[in-house]
Amino acid sequence: MTVDADSCLRFLREVRDVAFATVDEDGLPAVRVIDVMMVEGGRLYFVAARGKAFYGQVMRTRYVAIVGQSPDYRTCRLRGPVEHPDDPVEQRRLVDRVFELNPSMEELYPGDSRYVLEAFYLERGQGEFFDLGRHPLFRAPFALGGGPVAREGFTVSDACTGCGACFAACPQGCIAPRPDGRAFIEQQACLHCGRCREVCPSDAIAPR
Amino acid sequence: MTVDADSCLRFLREVRDVAFATVDEDGLPAVRVIDVMMVEGGRLYFVAARGKAFYGQVMRTRYVAIVGQSPDYRTCRLRGPVEHPDDPVEQRRLVDRVFELNPSMEELYPGDSRYVLEAFYLERGQGEFFDLGRHPLFRAPFALGGGPVAREGFTVSDACTGCGACFAACPQGCIAPRPDGRAFIEQQACLHCGRCREVCPSDAIAPR
Repeated sequence: MTVDADSCLRFLREVRDVAFATVDEDGLPAVRVIDVMMVEGGRLYFVAARGKAFYGQVMRTRYVAIVGQSPDYRTCRLRGPVEHPDDPVEQRRLVDRVFELNPSMEELYPGDSRYVLEAFYLERGQGEFFDLGRHPLFRAPFALGGGPVAREGFTVSDACTGCGACFAACPQGCIAPRPDGRAFIEQQACLHCGRCREVCPSDAIAPR
Repeated sequence: MTVDADSCLRFLREVRDVAFATVDEDGLPAVRVIDVMMVEGGRLYFVAARGKAFYGQVMRTRYVAIVGQSPDYRTCRLRGPVEHPDDPVEQRRLVDRVFELNPSMEELYPGDSRYVLEAFYLERGQGEFFDLGRHPLFRAPFALGGGPVAREGFTVSDACTGCGACFAACPQGCIAPRPDGRAFIEQQACLHCGRCREVCPSDAIAPR
């Protein structure tokens, strides 16, 4: 199963203070907290000031990975290409809209200083919603903008003999026999820890 | 000024659920929430299950960038090389210590399943502590493990004529004249937005 991309964007907007990861000029990861400024029309918007290292990294790579977590441990990850409207008039319109929806921004960037910010958005990408507060835990992937869903974790091949080694090894008890006796991984509750793969005597478990 | 690295590690441990950014095999950023499992001896420890994409990325690049934020908007960033003890006995000792300090881990990885986890730590790196809840905001860099402090933001060169354009342009009012009339940027309160640089008629403001 998958989860609905719009709900995930709304969740990230609700969390608001979200970690945005980029790659710097040396190919190393960088990360900082950035506000999700608005979610409209299937797009997630954020802003960056032109002087910041973050701005330079986004402009150069046009790609971010983000993760936000609510106080009750629901988590949403999303990664994808970043769009940047080049038209200055459209940029001003977007920045004004951001300030309208996020009045506290006026304290940080009063008056015309807001226009040192530029707006960016994601409208395509792959993500995952994750709820570690539930027992069993719940995770499900989603695609933003109609692309393919990224599937992580493990799957069981026809080489499975139904020996049951993985049933016992799974820390979440999320592997059970199918009617034919072979193992089935309940993806929604899987930690992706890989222990099933390590204990499988038939090499029947592989990354998805 | 700088802030104390040990306090920053303790802060990240207190926040506990922290975003860890890595670079994947395609050179793209990836990020997820990972627990800071312990802070001991100037080291920040985390664990990763061998089956996860995160584990593969850390083992391949041996570098992470992390950011954690408290509910009152204090934020700490840290990036640096990752150490991985190769000795299996030491790995088991560290994983056991992690479970001792974080009893809720037993719910996720009961019994011997904990040993699908491996421990990693940071003991060198560069970071920044940031408090957006204060007025004026406060930021200060730190170095972990005695290396150099990474300085971002902007500085004023001798080309400054003291015209005052940047005093008015700074959204945080953190640029003031020195006794000789030239501009001085109060780094602790700087947003790194770069507006001062954009308005300077003498090209006297440059990245640090």
